[in-house]
Amino acid sequence: MSVNKTYIVAILIGFISLSITAQQPADYVNPFIGTSNYGATYPGPIAPRGMASISPFNVAGSQNKLEKDSQWLSNPYVHENTFLTGFSHVNMSGVGCPELGVLLLMPTTGEVETNHLKYGSTYSNEEAKTAYYSSTIDKYDVKAEFTASTRVGVSKFTFPKGQANVLLNLGLGLTNEEGAMVKVVSSTEIEGMRSVGTFCYNSPEDAYPVYFVAKFSKPADSFGVWKKPETYEGVEAQWMTYNGKTRLMEGTKKMVVGDSIGTYFSYNFKQPETVEVKIGVSYVSIENARENLEKETQNKTFNEVYQETYNAWNEQLSRILVEGGTEDDKTIFYTALYHTLIHPNTLNDFNGEYPEIKTNNIGKTDGTRYTTFSLWDTYRNLHQLMSLVYPKQQSNMIKSMLDMYDENGWLPKWELNSTETFTMVGDPASIVITDTYLKGIQDFDVNKAYEAMLKSADALEDNPLRNGIKNYIEKGYVTTNEKGPVSTTQEYNAADYSISLLADALGKKDDYNRFKKRSISYRKLYDKNLKLLHPRNADGSFYEPFDPNSGANFEENVGFIEGNAWQYAFMVQHDVKGLIKLMGGKKPFVNQLQKVFDINQFDMANEPDIHYPYLFNYIKGEEHRTQKLVDQLIHKYFTNQPAGLPGNDDTGTMSAWLVYSMMGFYPITPGEPVYTITTPVFDEVTISLNPEYYNSKNITITRKKNNNNAIKTIKLNGKTHNSYFVTHDQLVNGKVLEIIQN
Amino acid sequence: MSVNKTYIVAILIGFISLSITAQQPADYVNPFIGTSNYGATYPGPIAPRGMASISPFNVAGSQNKLEKDSQWLSNPYVHENTFLTGFSHVNMSGVGCPELGVLLLMPTTGEVETNHLKYGSTYSNEEAKTAYYSSTIDKYDVKAEFTASTRVGVSKFTFPKGQANVLLNLGLGLTNEEGAMVKVVSSTEIEGMRSVGTFCYNSPEDAYPVYFVAKFSKPADSFGVWKKPETYEGVEAQWMTYNGKTRLMEGTKKMVVGDSIGTYFSYNFKQPETVEVKIGVSYVSIENARENLEKETQNKTFNEVYQETYNAWNEQLSRILVEGGTEDDKTIFYTALYHTLIHPNTLNDFNGEYPEIKTNNIGKTDGTRYTTFSLWDTYRNLHQLMSLVYPKQQSNMIKSMLDMYDENGWLPKWELNSTETFTMVGDPASIVITDTYLKGIQDFDVNKAYEAMLKSADALEDNPLRNGIKNYIEKGYVTTNEKGPVSTTQEYNAADYSISLLADALGKKDDYNRFKKRSISYRKLYDKNLKLLHPRNADGSFYEPFDPNSGANFEENVGFIEGNAWQYAFMVQHDVKGLIKLMGGKKPFVNQLQKVFDINQFDMANEPDIHYPYLFNYIKGEEHRTQKLVDQLIHKYFTNQPAGLPGNDDTGTMSAWLVYSMMGFYPITPGEPVYTITTPVFDEVTISLNPEYYNSKNITITRKKNNNNAIKTIKLNGKTHNSYFVTHDQLVNGKVLEIIQN
Repeated sequence: MSVNKTYIVAILIGFISLSITAQQPADYVNPFIGTSNYGATYPGPIAPRGMASISPFNVAGSQNKLEKDSQWLSNPYVHENTFLTGFSHVNMSGVGCPELGVLLLMPTTGEVETNHLKYGSTYSNEEAKTAYYSSTIDKYDVKAEFTASTRVGVSKFTFPKGQANVLLNLGLGLTNEEGAMVKVVSSTEIEGMRSVGTFCYNSPEDAYPVYFVAKFSKPADSFGVWKKPETYEGVEAQWMTYNGKTRLMEGTKKMVVGDSIGTYFSYNFKQPETVEVKIGVSYVSIENARENLEKETQNKTFNEVYQETYNAWNEQLSRILVEGGTEDDKTIFYTALYHTLIHPNTLNDFNGEYPEIKTNNIGKTDGTRYTTFSLWDTYRNLHQLMSLVYPKQQSNMIKSMLDMYDENGWLPKWELNSTETFTMVGDPASIVITDTYLKGIQDFDVNKAYEAMLKSADALEDNPLRNGIKNYIEKGYVTTNEKGPVSTTQEYNAADYSISLLADALGKKDDYNRFKKRSISYRKLYDKNLKLLHPRNADGSFYEPFDPNSGANFEENVGFIEGNAWQYAFMVQHDVKGLIKLMGGKKPFVNQLQKVFDINQFDMANEPDIHYPYLFNYIKGEEHRTQKLVDQLIHKYFTNQPAGLPGNDDTGTMSAWLVYSMMGFYPITPGEPVYTITTPVFDEVTISLNPEYYNSKNITITRKKNNNNAIKTIKLNGKTHNSYFVTHDQLVNGKVLEIIQN
Repeated sequence: MSVNKTYIVAILIGFISLSITAQQPADYVNPFIGTSNYGATYPGPIAPRGMASISPFNVAGSQNKLEKDSQWLSNPYVHENTFLTGFSHVNMSGVGCPELGVLLLMPTTGEVETNHLKYGSTYSNEEAKTAYYSSTIDKYDVKAEFTASTRVGVSKFTFPKGQANVLLNLGLGLTNEEGAMVKVVSSTEIEGMRSVGTFCYNSPEDAYPVYFVAKFSKPADSFGVWKKPETYEGVEAQWMTYNGKTRLMEGTKKMVVGDSIGTYFSYNFKQPETVEVKIGVSYVSIENARENLEKETQNKTFNEVYQETYNAWNEQLSRILVEGGTEDDKTIFYTALYHTLIHPNTLNDFNGEYPEIKTNNIGKTDGTRYTTFSLWDTYRNLHQLMSLVYPKQQSNMIKSMLDMYDENGWLPKWELNSTETFTMVGDPASIVITDTYLKGIQDFDVNKAYEAMLKSADALEDNPLRNGIKNYIEKGYVTTNEKGPVSTTQEYNAADYSISLLADALGKKDDYNRFKKRSISYRKLYDKNLKLLHPRNADGSFYEPFDPNSGANFEENVGFIEGNAWQYAFMVQHDVKGLIKLMGGKKPFVNQLQKVFDINQFDMANEPDIHYPYLFNYIKGEEHRTQKLVDQLIHKYFTNQPAGLPGNDDTGTMSAWLVYSMMGFYPITPGEPVYTITTPVFDEVTISLNPEYYNSKNITITRKKNNNNAIKTIKLNGKTHNSYFVTHDQLVNGKVLEIIQN
């Protein structure tokens, strides 16, 4: 009996240590990736597609290398920075404009100090993992830990003995919008709102509130609100000894509003103690913020919330299992997958309510109302990844877009929290919808979707989505009267191509022909001499003087948006054959494409050219270039480092590029359900397929021989596949895709 | 029969026309009195002791003669000004510091313009009467009419056809506090709050919200919120084309906060139409503001509200009926009485809730919680008038003061909306309480009151009410280390005298002696050479160089608060005999007193010396001087003109002086239930006495012979009264006081 017991204990210990040490997909996530080199991600916790999140906020104060007011800075956290002024509770990941980054919680000790430049501190012992971030606030010797549920940020502060304070700073933030309201409800609760909005400084009239309720695990021994008003300049200012100075309104439970306000909750601890703070948010109302908090986290400890969110992440990330590759390969892969599951994110409250776009009404959904549609970025690959791996989510994203059409009269372009920010150019919603539909995800009202697509494609007047459409339709291109006319023409071509595909699928032959024709009008911008696209003026002449190199590194230029002629020339994936012809055949095409890389004009950091490395697959015998380039780019730009993204993650678009590229295939033409193939980084990749949408349970991609040689053979379900292209149907109805190297 | 009918009709017509033309007391009120010459009253409607009121707001914009930011200005309306920018819904009457004057409603037409300097207008056809104000807004040809119930301002705008707008400007205001929140609830309702506070720039940390709900009689065809943020100065400002500019947020129902925000409700009228707007206010919550609005005015038309408030005023004003005198005499009399019934005003909501002072809790009262206790002013005569004519109100005021003591630990000094503003000097609450108690109004907890009085009288440390108390008790006077040491000493003496009176009444002999002794310590400041009071330094020496004339017209000086040695020398009403002795007898006393007037140092515009004219009554044979002076002062400073007050009304204190003086008697020594007599302006004055407190139903003061000669005989209840002083008991138990001239 005693032997048996020991045996059982040994097994149990083995089991426990196994379950502890076995690396789950969620354990590979390194949230620091992208927190340097303008990746614009943040290391703090968020639930999959969460509304709330927590980021350490270290971009205020001249002590920091990158300071938010001294330069363009679009993220709440920069890894090189050192001076922390709080932890923000609504954040955007991987975007290029400063927005949100508000509701800053900060633990301090001693006398209450409300000036962030004074209460700020360095920090150390940073730890970031899925659903968890912690660091030590040096100045106060406070351990700060954070986790989050979908709509609630949860903080845990371990204070030394003495006076401890938890500041909620409603003034400081990343957004350039100002104004907040706060009301202390009791010694354990605060409610209020913070104005945010005007993403990329567009649509300022749509600035909107984020409502919140904060609950503390321990009643404060004292609390108050601070308010720092603007400096009054009238004659009476001489009597105002407090003019423009911060005031502490001790113990007040009255509503306080202002641009620079906040609350402090203070404790007198006789011994080291912890305080947990839960902050529920909502874009509808304070009541909903409170309900979100209660329904998601009431009676749950910090650790319980953490474990639930960790499990939710692990479940999501485990939809793709990989074998082989280095530990760093797995880390960058799962971190990238994690980054594709942040945006689009949840907008609706626990009860289903959300602010409608434009109508000023409160809508209600049974599913999920998604927001943060950075479509100019994500139409290229992120939604394609969602359709394959998370089709239910993708379906809800399409439904959210169609609801926006119902509310707003237009499909979204760059939607954020039910505001249309009109950021970037093009009309990408049609591409995402077509791509989704043609992949067999069809549980949405496709007729409405088609109607919506046609509306922006055809409206010549008062068309908020397609500026320059008149010239585009009449001349075939947008002229230099508009910003980025070449880029815009190409975007419209891509959208029109998708419309033609959907028209075809819906049996609308006339539309199919019409839009198919429209989709190749970029050819009119082709400049034979340059073998590039060249902007044209309203009178039809080419714009001169024209420098094809001008526009690299986000330099403003006539012709292109965030890029130059090199970076846009091949952004006609739907008409590669046409482009080959324009360029004079396969050889000149390959030469020109290779030249982009040789003269260092390829930009991994922005979307227009990120598919370039895959274009060699169109030329038989040149596919090895794709394989080599993709492999080089993966390892050059994507590393297990804070600077491990090539630039802005663009709400997961760069990460989606990496996920696909590491799996060995890529959705080369947005809208078209086709992937092109390269060498996977992993020996085996298994994607679980959702039985609601797909027949096969899963699809496995294997890499055989596993060396650095070019691909020799591709097999699909054991049979040789004589193409570097595979359709979505082939893939999701298949079982194994074997990629065999020389 | 037919004859009879005609007869009856004739009677009816006679009766109706009589009831229409008969001048009721309320009909004599001219709300324009005090709207010039810094009287600081406003002409708009208010209910007796109302929380809400409406004033035309014409003090913004350089078009105006007196502009609020270009000079010290404490009133929302100045009669000489011409440029109107709205109608404010919470206002203070007759005060010396700019406060409240917010929630500005403004009718406009045409395109919505939100800049008050642009939408502002001249106005004409001003009409102001009890409970009613109207004018024509010239620029828009809109007739604007206003009335109010206790907690609700009611507006009625008659618009021409075309686009009509009702702006609610939450940025502009008289207060120097900034910040507001607003949320459009529906096309007929708005809710929100406006920060106000820091009366006289004191206690800035007590800035507080006034909550409101506005309801419109007609649904707006369109509405929105505007917001003008501060100018952002970071590097990203170059992208903010809207930086610092006003934005219109059309149709938004989201919460908006900011320093410069407002709402517009617009109509497209096919014909001239009226819109009524009701704005309920509360210092507790938006919910209470809504309840106040509904309970007081729901389903009532503008005219019904007006009639109710008119009737309430008439009932109050009719407590004193006058005969004789000119129409102007009656007008200035009833307007003065009206002005004494504005402050202290109601703080509690319809449901009894009010914000407690200091505790941050919400209190609840069954009676009325009063606020706006400008006690440095009102302890001298206003509360004495209330005790005589409105003893129930005075009783509730005392109870409010005692509740403040319960909440705050201290009696009020200068309380406003449950903030202690610590304006002016002295400790006047004890005087008001004693005065009330000794007049037989004793339905309050006198023991608690006595305890509260002793607290501030004796606390040597951390005494917020009596600064300099240590020196005051040790040396007998406050030294030049403190502001206004002579004035402060005199105020403490007056308070201590009242405490001694109450101690006596309560049988506390030791306290009686102690405080009686303390009350004459001003004598140590008497300067024999000057025959005036002279500030003394901490070492006991007189402060030199000393100019007794310095300090007139509110000039700052060492020694006195808002006055000089002449204006304070005789402010020892409780020790006139002692002063006579100090001055060397009756003759030198009379000479010195007369000199104040002769050298033009008497200041009718401020409180310290307003009892001076009555002091001649202390010297037998000199009473004629009192009669002559009072008569002169009444007709010199109090007229049926906008400039018809000598200066700030001081929440009715100047008006109370006038009411008493015109009735022919004056409460000469605050705290002491004694009046001194002069010639009434009216032939007959009848005061209705409240049977809850007094035995006689009413008391009539008659003036016999009615000429300009001095008084020959005074009779009380038909018997010769051989004194120019009459006790409160004698008066309220009497029936007729006859004042017979030569």
